[in-house]
Formats: sequence, structure tokens, C-alpha cells
Amino acid sequence: MDFVYGPGKNHLFVPGPVNIPEPVIRAMNRNNEDYRSPAIPALTKTLLEDVKKIFKTTSGTPFLIPTTGTASSIHPSACTGAWESALTNTLSPGDRIVSFLIGQFSLLWIDQQQRLNFRVDVIESEWGRGADLDALASKLEADRSHTIKAVCIVHNETATGVTNDLAAVRKLLDGYRHPALVLVDGVSSICAIDFRMDEWGVDVALTGSQKALSMPTGMGIVCASPKAMEAAKTAKSVRVFFDWNDYLKFYKLGTFWPYTPSIQLLYGLRTALDLLFEEGLDNVIARHSRLGKATRLAVEAWGLKNCTQREDWFSDTVTAVVVPPYINSADVVKRAWTRYNLSLGLGLNKVAGKVFRIGHLGNLNELQLLGCLSGVEMVLRDVGYPVKLGSGVAAAAAHLRNTTPMITSRI
Amino acid sequence: MDFVYGPGKNHLFVPGPVNIPEPVIRAMNRNNEDYRSPAIPALTKTLLEDVKKIFKTTSGTPFLIPTTGTASSIHPSACTGAWESALTNTLSPGDRIVSFLIGQFSLLWIDQQQRLNFRVDVIESEWGRGADLDALASKLEADRSHTIKAVCIVHNETATGVTNDLAAVRKLLDGYRHPALVLVDGVSSICAIDFRMDEWGVDVALTGSQKALSMPTGMGIVCASPKAMEAAKTAKSVRVFFDWNDYLKFYKLGTFWPYTPSIQLLYGLRTALDLLFEEGLDNVIARHSRLGKATRLAVEAWGLKNCTQREDWFSDTVTAVVVPPYINSADVVKRAWTRYNLSLGLGLNKVAGKVFRIGHLGNLNELQLLGCLSGVEMVLRDVGYPVKLGSGVAAAAAHLRNTTPMITSRI
Amino acid sequence: MDFVYGPGKNHLFVPGPVNIPEPVIRAMNRNNEDYRSPAIPALTKTLLEDVKKIFKTTSGTPFLIPTTGTASSIHPSACTGAWESALTNTLSPGDRIVSFLIGQFSLLWIDQQQRLNFRVDVIESEWGRGADLDALASKLEADRSHTIKAVCIVHNETATGVTNDLAAVRKLLDGYRHPALVLVDGVSSICAIDFRMDEWGVDVALTGSQKALSMPTGMGIVCASPKAMEAAKTAKSVRVFFDWNDYLKFYKLGTFWPYTPSIQLLYGLRTALDLLFEEGLDNVIARHSRLGKATRLAVEAWGLKNCTQREDWFSDTVTAVVVPPYINSADVVKRAWTRYNLSLGLGLNKVAGKVFRIGHLGNLNELQLLGCLSGVEMVLRDVGYPVKLGSGVAAAAAHLRNTTPMITSRI
Amino acid sequence: MDFVYGPGKNHLFVPGPVNIPEPVIRAMNRNNEDYRSPAIPALTKTLLEDVKKIFKTTSGTPFLIPTTGTASSIHPSACTGAWESALTNTLSPGDRIVSFLIGQFSLLWIDQQQRLNFRVDVIESEWGRGADLDALASKLEADRSHTIKAVCIVHNETATGVTNDLAAVRKLLDGYRHPALVLVDGVSSICAIDFRMDEWGVDVALTGSQKALSMPTGMGIVCASPKAMEAAKTAKSVRVFFDWNDYLKFYKLGTFWPYTPSIQLLYGLRTALDLLFEEGLDNVIARHSRLGKATRLAVEAWGLKNCTQREDWFSDTVTAVVVPPYINSADVVKRAWTRYNLSLGLGLNKVAGKVFRIGHLGNLNELQLLGCLSGVEMVLRDVGYPVKLGSGVAAAAAHLRNTTPMITSRI
Repeated sequence: MDFVYGPGKNHLFVPGPVNIPEPVIRAMNRNNEDYRSPAIPALTKTLLEDVKKIFKTTSGTPFLIPTTGTASSIHPSACTGAWESALTNTLSPGDRIVSFLIGQFSLLWIDQQQRLNFRVDVIESEWGRGADLDALASKLEADRSHTIKAVCIVHNETATGVTNDLAAVRKLLDGYRHPALVLVDGVSSICAIDFRMDEWGVDVALTGSQKALSMPTGMGIVCASPKAMEAAKTAKSVRVFFDWNDYLKFYKLGTFWPYTPSIQLLYGLRTALDLLFEEGLDNVIARHSRLGKATRLAVEAWGLKNCTQREDWFSDTVTAVVVPPYINSADVVKRAWTRYNLSLGLGLNKVAGKVFRIGHLGNLNELQLLGCLSGVEMVLRDVGYPVKLGSGVAAAAAHLRNTTPMITSRI
Repeated sequence: MDFVYGPGKNHLFVPGPVNIPEPVIRAMNRNNEDYRSPAIPALTKTLLEDVKKIFKTTSGTPFLIPTTGTASSIHPSACTGAWESALTNTLSPGDRIVSFLIGQFSLLWIDQQQRLNFRVDVIESEWGRGADLDALASKLEADRSHTIKAVCIVHNETATGVTNDLAAVRKLLDGYRHPALVLVDGVSSICAIDFRMDEWGVDVALTGSQKALSMPTGMGIVCASPKAMEAAKTAKSVRVFFDWNDYLKFYKLGTFWPYTPSIQLLYGLRTALDLLFEEGLDNVIARHSRLGKATRLAVEAWGLKNCTQREDWFSDTVTAVVVPPYINSADVVKRAWTRYNLSLGLGLNKVAGKVFRIGHLGNLNELQLLGCLSGVEMVLRDVGYPVKLGSGVAAAAAHLRNTTPMITSRI
Repeated sequence: MDFVYGPGKNHLFVPGPVNIPEPVIRAMNRNNEDYRSPAIPALTKTLLEDVKKIFKTTSGTPFLIPTTGTASSIHPSACTGAWESALTNTLSPGDRIVSFLIGQFSLLWIDQQQRLNFRVDVIESEWGRGADLDALASKLEADRSHTIKAVCIVHNETATGVTNDLAAVRKLLDGYRHPALVLVDGVSSICAIDFRMDEWGVDVALTGSQKALSMPTGMGIVCASPKAMEAAKTAKSVRVFFDWNDYLKFYKLGTFWPYTPSIQLLYGLRTALDLLFEEGLDNVIARHSRLGKATRLAVEAWGLKNCTQREDWFSDTVTAVVVPPYINSADVVKRAWTRYNLSLGLGLNKVAGKVFRIGHLGNLNELQLLGCLSGVEMVLRDVGYPVKLGSGVAAAAAHLRNTTPMITSRI
Repeated sequence: MDFVYGPGKNHLFVPGPVNIPEPVIRAMNRNNEDYRSPAIPALTKTLLEDVKKIFKTTSGTPFLIPTTGTASSIHPSACTGAWESALTNTLSPGDRIVSFLIGQFSLLWIDQQQRLNFRVDVIESEWGRGADLDALASKLEADRSHTIKAVCIVHNETATGVTNDLAAVRKLLDGYRHPALVLVDGVSSICAIDFRMDEWGVDVALTGSQKALSMPTGMGIVCASPKAMEAAKTAKSVRVFFDWNDYLKFYKLGTFWPYTPSIQLLYGLRTALDLLFEEGLDNVIARHSRLGKATRLAVEAWGLKNCTQREDWFSDTVTAVVVPPYINSADVVKRAWTRYNLSLGLGLNKVAGKVFRIGHLGNLNELQLLGCLSGVEMVLRDVGYPVKLGSGVAAAAAHLRNTTPMITSRI
């Protein structure tokens, strides 16, 4: 039984955890197995090979870490294992890093960086804006002696629906011939928004199973470039649980696991990757682009503002919608859940009460989104905003109708 | 894996089989068990007691039959086990029965009745109209010697979306003090549309697991009144697999099953009933009423005709939508599936090509329906009907917003 | 939750329903689908083609019937849909048939044959013995005018653990050039004991999903020879639900289903067949032979008698063990369940109280059987039979150790 | 599908991950949910309350950590999140701790302690012996100034099957009035072997979901005494991901989670606890005691030595069996898996090649164990050890038959 039940399906539109496809749920519906039998290493080998494709890397080294890949909180006290893995394996206490603060999740990462005793140059933007790359340029220009060891950037800030331009970061670093590592939180982008680890010279990228991969929570996926692997050899941060070296020893042995993995998540990942490749990673990204655009058109039709201030920062995985001042966005979220079985994301920290968030990532299709948008319309009316019912749905549908392709397997 | 996969959820809006709630899927996710152990009879006992509630009977005798409860076909050659059980246990070859032909499923039942060698007085109505009760009145009036042994009626004709008035049938029979049995196909009504076996003097009522009960196909549920049980003692139709007497012997023994039941379906039924009672049967019926009305308002907003010709026949579980003459309704169904992962019902037989059907029964909620309606709008545009996108959704949402209650468990 | 729970796995050793392999449970763990979409006919096509292989036929026509394939009862009142399908589609009321009575399940089938108004020549054997083929020979010899329309035989009598020699039946018929149809109940043999439909000239063979196919109950699988299909054209038995003609119409249309199939069982069958073919049908049969032999060696080591009286009748799917006269075999079954979570089969009818049955069919391996045998030893001691603990296990293990092959996929 | 398939059930007898009961598998068979809705905190509240019962504490503070609770490796490079959580939250770099080295898992923990920069007094015992408490006594006696901040002890060493006497540790500390914290790895004991946090004055205890709780891997469960919580306020070890303070903030808020929990594991834990309490925690412990004793009797009957050197150290959750010098224990493990679908544990590090391990913990019953033991007998013969088949099974069964109670729910 569910702990709190309502008739029909739950409409899950938080920006993670997201809807799990039935084939993945089925694949995980199983007993435990001995992970030291020959079967699990054989399975793992295919996973490590294939998971590199979602990062678009051939030279990276992937790690599947039994941890949560993201954090979410109302107060800045949360943290995440994948982040900790990225930082402690490549940096030493006291190292100077540059980090962009553009919303709640970048804020939390910075909090972690500081608690792990790095010296963090925080470059802050107004929430709703992207990373301030001019400020980065200034810092790089000034840093002739290369005291900056790493640039940390959240690819897609889930709190505000802002996607940063990673190619531009690479361009800047190359322009200044700066050797700083680039550490990227791709938690709400990878498998949904175009991400190119090798091409963009990303040194550590990471995501979590419960985001665009559409699995349950529990697996952090971290990928390290050769340069990051080199840095790991001398990094002095204390680490045991998250130490890449333990993984590498077992990679060499061919048994792969320095700890007991979740058998269920391994089979789930196998199926999740199979589904991604069956649809085609680029098709998956195009689908997210369609759904993101449709959502933004609906918001516009409702006469509401997107929290994201500029079009080139628009996120294809989450849209933060600004409510009028006379409405508390928490009421939108609450009513959606209690009356329509619709789960939306809260506004966090600085934008608490001011925005609600529609997650449109993962294994999702057009009619699911339109059902959600129709629900948001009803909720908005319920809380006193005079939206015209059907207006957002119509705007979204007009876009989707022209762009939705046939389902390949059904032609 | 699915045999043919598409991203996101399938939107299942055929009038059966319908969406299974997750708790029921979970309950059925199990190994076989010995059905002769004490556990299964103990479970069965609760099922037989509780299943009577969905028929609103206290005096009826229920049978859980391992068969399909409905039939669906393009040509009139299909048949159904539950129907056969109802007929052969209460009637003898050559018996005269009155049967209403109002659509494909009543047609199929009549076909079965004739093949089982009953003499059938067919009372035909135009498809889209309900049972012609005046014609029944004439027949009853003329039948002073009570040669009519049974009246067979489909409560809700799934092909045209027509709900018949069973209370009126009872009134007529009582008015003429006619002793004919009343056999009711409640396949697409029971658990969704108000049905009162005892109050309306229904003698055999039947439904199937895959309809409003929201389970997989495989279980026909038949309930017999004391009068029907009495008739079974003398009915001469040849029957073995469907013979109620075999059940009754095992009921007395307390082992309940004359055959090997599906363990999975028993646990599924237990959970399905638990969910129905948790929501409340009357609340479930009210939910169907809301969703049915919302669908009809959408059809009206689209400028399309309901196949059902009069308001008092409107069905709360399925709506047959008439397309303009220049459109083939089969193209609507096909495109919905290949492009939007939306499953709609075809038009059958006389209305093939002319109508498509939206099933809105079973474990379904408001946003699921609105997602479906938005999909239908896009499909209609795709096939050349100039519907205003959002118009049907808006009409449906306006109704739903004013009538949807809070989810009780979440208040 | 289970209705009655005990720690650890249930040890399911009734002769059906049997243990379902995890991959089949997973495949069935799914929502409903529209069976009129293109996906289900495409899936069905592969099933109808592949299911013929388990009958070893290329010319047969298979039918997947939503019914129970077997019956089990304490009193002779049960019946089965697959049987009814076989009889009513090939024979007419009053037809003379020869039927062997060798145990409870042949008895039940004969009861059905009589209730369906065939004239049945019953050839009875002592329970524990096979079909009396000499008696059949006499009847065939006497029947110059070919009044015998069919010979009905249970391949493996589940009540006594007796396997009949079907090749010998064919030889007799050929010897007398007798055209009678051969109808075979292969419920507890097919997929486990060598069965050759084409080679042995079987006209209708049938089994059920919950037996050696190792699926849940709910699907009867019937296969008809060209001669049986020809007979179906003129057979006059009244039939609607079980009428093959309705299936054939839909086979021609390519939509395949005259009724709503269970989507879950279709996917389950797909996986069950895949597993059978992965292991290899002949390997599966050899595995049953090993497990059957091991069980019989254990019984011998315990100093108990096999209900089956002659070695050439020994069944590889079920062993009926005769208990000493001072023990009630029902106590063995009861105690096994209440104390050791072990499900054994009761003795039925004439052998009630005298035998208990160990089912060793379906997806089962050596250690599962040995666990069961060790449990039986403890139970026997508990009920007062002075078995030497470990004796049966040792005898069985000695046989298994010498014959168990490596698991192919693990070499 | 499984990655490597074999017919029948896999017999899982590694000392973790262990067999998951079907009800837990079912409970976890679900889509993701929004963990910020009111449902998940409500569920979590019951979990945090109930999980204390498995530690037998009323004053402890539990933490459910998304990590692996144990480590397993061939080379001493693995580590574990729960351990790291226990150490870093209560101690500061440079702190002196006493740690017992008695097998591979205590070795790995010590490795972690050293890498986290604590000063570790290692008290080593021969592998197969328990913690040297005399050595502890000497250290405590010498430590008048209380420089020892913590004593770290593995309750049950999984590599050798040795259970330490925690009550004796407490007695020693009390005798010397020594304030050192007591940190206990209860990974392979809690829920299976008597453990009393409050009574024994344990300050931090920890286990993992995949051990006696019989769930999938992925959740470390840590419980801290008030004294440990006090120590956490001043502990200076760098920690972010594992920081208890983040949890406590969210405990106060009533939202409970500083990170995204696995929805599936929460529902799984709910059911796992329900099953434990239904059977009764003391009954569960008694069941492990029966199964442990039975296993040791089998080993004795085989003429083999238990790696554990003294009876009072015998473990009720895992038995390490010493093979004769002419046999490589890895061959036992390999052959068990490739031929009998039986998963056994390897010998690790110092006892690699010399012992194999039978895990008998978690949701397991008597016949499962006997099946395993019969398999071990066959394997032993296969690899050249002249065991008498059935001998171990007989010895184990004799013990079990006299001690196995009726299953309560079935009386």
C-alpha cells in the first residue's frame, strides 16, 4: 500500500526524483544476488562502458557511487556524496576554487566546498540569472600564477531553472590558457540537456540516478577526465568512503566493487541505458527541448513570469514560475497535491513562496505534461489567480503538435 | 521490456482493460501458492463476502470465474464466459428470452444466446439509443402465460456509451407481475455507475476484473439472486466448466475452488476491493460521474456529437464521439497511438469509422483525463478537424475544478 | 502482504501451481494495455508460433484460452475449460469415446465427458497403474464399424504419478487402422516429460500455464491437429465461449483475440518460452528426469512405497508416496505447511489419507528438491514414521551429483 | 532477464546481501514520489521510531544514511559510509582509539580509522578468535588520563564467523570507570544476534539494509547514544555528506531528509520492520540461533573444522568452514555457483583459499538451509573431499526437528 493513497496515478512533476519507466521498475523487481559471482562483474563491465556515452566522453573514467547525487533543502545544510567525491579526489585543503552562486543548489555546493576547507571565490548572480562569466574572466585574467585550482559550476540550477553555458567557460579558460580543473554538477542536465564532457573539457561531471536517468535514488554517477585522474594522485583531502583509488584497485582486479553495490540499481541502470539508447540520446534531448519550450509557452499564456531572466538561460528540465505577490507559491504546491494528486516543486530559500517549479525531465511524454499544465491551471484558479482555463494547455499543445515525432517503434 | 516501447507512460483510455493501480500491481507481484493450504480459503472467504458489496446485494451468491468477463470484436463472433455462465445456469434450451440490441456488445450477447439455443425476442434500437422499454412493456403485456423466462439487458453498452435504466425495467416487470428473470451485463458499469442488485431485483449480474475493478483480465465475477439460484436447480442447459453447482459443493466444503484459481488475481482482487472501500464506493461512482460529464463537455466544446442520443442515456464510463463524415475515426485511434502514446477505442461494427471512444472508467483521476483530452485535440487537428486547441480541456477543467474534492487521506 | 506469512521462502512442491521464475514474475509486473493496438497482435504472433514447439508439432493449430487448464478436487465435481474445449470442438453429443480411468484427474475428465452427453466406454485400472492398453486393443478390434470417435487419455495422471505410453496408443490405433481421434490431457507432462504431438499422431493436446510452463494459473493451451480441425467443422456440441471458430476468424484478421486476453499472461508466456528455449526443451526434460529419479530414490531409501506400481509408469513430474497404514497422509501435508513452510500435495479420492504427493515439475533445481526431501524426512519423523534423517537426501544427492550438468550460461 | 540465468531459484548463502522476503520486494516495486510531500515525512517518522527497536534502545538517535553499511574486499582497501559516519561525527583527527583486529572486516575498519587520521591502538587476535579483552583491560588500566577516546569493535566478524562479547566490553569500561565511547559495527549481527544498545552502553551502533534486515543494499542505519550526540558537538573531523548535524536540522523541521532518500528503500524498510515485528524480534534471533547451531552440527558431521576456535565465539549468522589443505576453498565456491546455483562466501585475505563461508542470516528458514547444506555436501565430494552425503543434513535436521516451532500465523 501507499502511505497516503489517492485515486489514479500520481502526477510527478518535481525536478527529481522523476518518473521511472515500467521496464526499469520491472528490472529492479528482484531478489539480491552475490555480487562476487561472475555475473555481476560481467554486468558491471557493460555499465561502465555504456555510462560514458551519457557524458559524451571516451576518455573519462566513470564511478558508480552508492550515494545521493543531489541535495535539496530549504536551509543550506544539505550536501551530496557525488559532489564530495568530485571535490575531495581532485583538491587539497586550502586550494582556491571559483564557484558560481546562482541558486539554492549552487549555494549548497559552495557551503560544502567551504566546510571541506577549500578557499572559495564565490561569484554571485541574482537568482534567476546564469553564471557571471565576466567575473570569471576577470579572475582568470588576474590569476597569472594559477592559484585557482578549479572552477565549480552547476550546469543546470534546479532551483531557478537556469542552464549555464559550459562551452563558454571552456572558451574562457582556453583563452587565458588557465589549467584550472572544471568540475560540473550535471545533476539535472545530463541525459536531458546537451552535455559534452570531452568537447567542453570538463574534468569531473556528475549526476544522480533519480534525475534524467529516471531511476530510483541511490546511485551517484561521477566521471573523471584523465586530468582529474592525474590530480587525484596528489590531492590531499581526507577521503575514504569516496576515494576513487579503492575503485581503481577493483577495476584492475575485474571485480569492480570496493563495496556492496545494490544489485537492483545495477539491473535498473542496465535497462535505463537500454531505453535511452533505444530512443536515442539525441532524441531524448530533443524531447526535453520540446517539453521545456511547451512549458514556457504555457507560462507565458498564463501571464506569469519565468524566474529565469534571459532566454539563453532557459532550462529544458525545470521551469520556475513566479506567482503574483498576493499568492504564496507554497499554497500552489500544497493544493496541487491534496486536490489533484499533482506533485510540483517548492520555491527554495530566496525564492520561497515566490516561485513554484514544474519539473519536466526524465521519462516523460507530451500528454503527461499537458495533464500537468491543465492541473496547474486549475490550481492557479483555486488559489485566486484569474488564469483562463485551457490557455496554457493550448499554447503548449500548439507547439507540441508541430514538433512531436511519431514514436519510432510504432511507425 | 515492452513489445513496442515509447517514452513516458502509455495513456490508456480504451473502455477496458483499464489502468491498474500500483498497489494492485504490487499485490499481484508474487510467486504461486498452494491453493489447498488454509491460507487461500481464508482469503477467498473475505473476497466472496466483500465482492457482494460492489453489486449492492446481501442475498446474492457470488462466483469468481476464471474467464474473461467481456468480449470485444469487430465482427460478431466473440463471446464471453461470464455471459455463458449466467445463461446456461438459469435457462434451458428453447427457453424464450427478451434481449435488447442497442450496440455491438448487446449484439454479441444475443449472438451467444441464439447459439446456445434459446429463443430470443430481439428488441432493437438505433445505435446510440437505449433499450426500447415500450417494446418490452408490449411484450410483457401480451405474455399472460409467462413464456418469457428472462430479460437480458446490457447495463452500459460500451460500443455506444449508452446506460440503460434498470430501475425502469424492474418497475415494468413488477407492474405486469411478470416472473421473468433479469440478467444484467454490468461489465462496464459495476464499480463505476450506480448499480443496485437487490433494490432493482436483478437476478444475475456480472462484470469482469479488467473493467472498473481496475485489475488485469482473467476473472469474471457473477452474482446470482436467490431466485436465480432456484432456477439453476432445474435449468437444463448443458454446462460443466461454468456449472455453479460445482462451486456450491466447494463452498460447502470451505475449500471454495472447484478449479485452480489464479493466486495472483485473488490477491489483486483483495487489494482492488480495499482501495474501492478506502475511497468509498459512492465516492468512486461520483468520481466517474465527474469524469464522464467533463468528457462530454469537452466533446461539446469541440463541436462534435456524442453518439448517445439522449442525456438520460449518457454513460459515465465511456463516451463515443462521432467524427465528421470526411474523417475516418480509425485514423484518430491509430494516430493517437503512434504519435502520442494514447490508446483510444475504435468504433465497432455499425459505427466503425464513424466514432472513436474515450474510456473513462476505473482507477483514473482528473489530470489523467485532461491529458487524454488534450491529446485528442491534437489528434483531431492532425487528421484535419479544425478544433480549437485547449477548448475541450477548458470546458472539462471548468467542470472538474468546481466539483473535484480534496483527496480524503490528504486533508 | 501475504495472507498468512511465515519466515523465509515457501517451499512449493504441489504438482501445480508451481514456482514461477523471477524473470516471468518481472515480465508480468505491468499495467494493462490496449490489446487492439498493433503491439499485442505482433507479440501474439510470436507466441502462437513458438508455443507449437512445446507440443513438438509443426502442423498443429494452437489456442490460448483464458481458462484453467486443470482441475483439482477432493470430490469428482470439478472440470476444466481446456478439456471442454478439446471435447466440444471435435465431437457431437452421443458420440462414443473410450476413456481411461486411472486416477482422480482421469476420473474428473470422464465425469465431464459424461455430463457433456458423450457415450463413454470407461477402461478402469487400479489406481497406481497405467492405462489398460489391452482393453483398448480389444475394443478397437471389436469396433470394425468405427463407432469409437475418440480415445481420451491423460498423459500423466497427477493423482497417482503415473505416466502413460502414448506411442503405444498410436501403435494400436495404427495397427487396427482405426480413425479415432486421440485427445490427450498433457497438463502435468508437456514441457517436462517427452511429448511428441506430430510423431505420436495426437489430435488434441492441452496443458495449463501453471504447470511445467511455470506461470500463474489462467491460460489453457490447446493444440489441434489438422484432423481435429477438420472434425471441428462438423462437431455438433453446443459451444460458444470455447468455440475454436471464433479464434480462427480473428487469426485470419491478424488481430488474433476473440476476447480480451490477459496482457500480463501474454508477456509472461513470452518470457516463459524464452527461458525454456534458453535452457533447451530437451535439457528441461532431462532435468525433470533427474529430479524425478532422485525423488524416487529418496522414497525407496525411506522404506516407503511409490503409489505407482511399475517402473515404466513412473512419473518425472509427481511422485505419490504411500504412507504406512497407521499414518494419515493428510497429517503429513498439514504439518509440512504449518511447521516447515513446505507445501505438499494431498492424496485424492481413493488414495486420500494414504498418499501424499511431491510435485517436482516446473522451474526447479536440485537443491530446491533436496531441501524439500529433508523437510519430508522431518515431517515423517514428526508424524511417527521412524525414517532415518538424511537417508533420502543422501540417496537423491548421490544420483544428482553424478548427473547434474554445469549451468550452461556459467561455464 | 537475469544477466546470467540458471533454472530454479538461486540459493543465496553469502553473508550478505541476503534473501529479500517477497513482501519487501513487493513494497519496493513502485514509482518515485516527491519526498517533500506530507506522505514521506509521515512514513519516515514511523521508521525512525521503529528502527530504534532493532537496536534495543529508547534513548538513541537513529540515522538512515544512503550508503552501504558494509564493505567487502579481497584487499584491504574498502571502506564504508556507516563506519565513516560513526567515526567522523564523534572523534577528532589525532584522537586515540582502541580497535580489535580479528578478521577482514575489522581490518578494513582499522584501515579506515587510520586513513581518517586517528591514532589507532590495534589489538590483534589470531583469525578465528574473538577480541582480546585482556589486552583491552591492560590498556584501560594504563590509561588513567583517559587518552583513549573510543573503543571500536566489530560485534560479529563476518570473515571468520566470530561473535564478540559486548557486555564484557561494557563491564571492563565500567570497572575502570573509563569514559571512552564504544563504537560497534553490528553489520552482521543486528536483527539476528542479541544486541542491546542501551543495556550494554553502546554509543554508536550501525548496520546495513542488506544484512539481517533482508533488504537491498543502499541504506546504512546508524544509531547514536546521547553521549555520542554530545561528542558530535565538538568532534572536529571534517565531514559534510555524513554530518549528523544536517540530519538533526531536518528532524527539527519535521521534513527529516537533508538529501533525496530512496522512496523504494523507505517503503521496503517499513515492510521489513513490519515482518520483523510480526515474527517477533526475539523469535527472529532464536531462529538464527537454531540455524547457526544446525550449520555447525553439519560441519562437525562432515569432519571439517569451524574457523572459529571457541564455542562462545560461534556466530549465528555466518559459519566459516575450514577445508582440508589439499583443497582450495575458492573451488568450492566456484563449483557451487556453476553447478548447483548455490552462492557461498569466499575466504578473505589471511584465510583465502582456506575457508568458505555459509551465511545463514536474514529472511531464511530451515528447509532453505538444509537445501544449502545438501549442496555443500555434493560440492565437497565434487572437489575431492570424501564427505558422506546426507551426513551434515542429518545432523542439522536432527537439531532443527526438535527445535523448530510451528509458524505462529498457521496454528
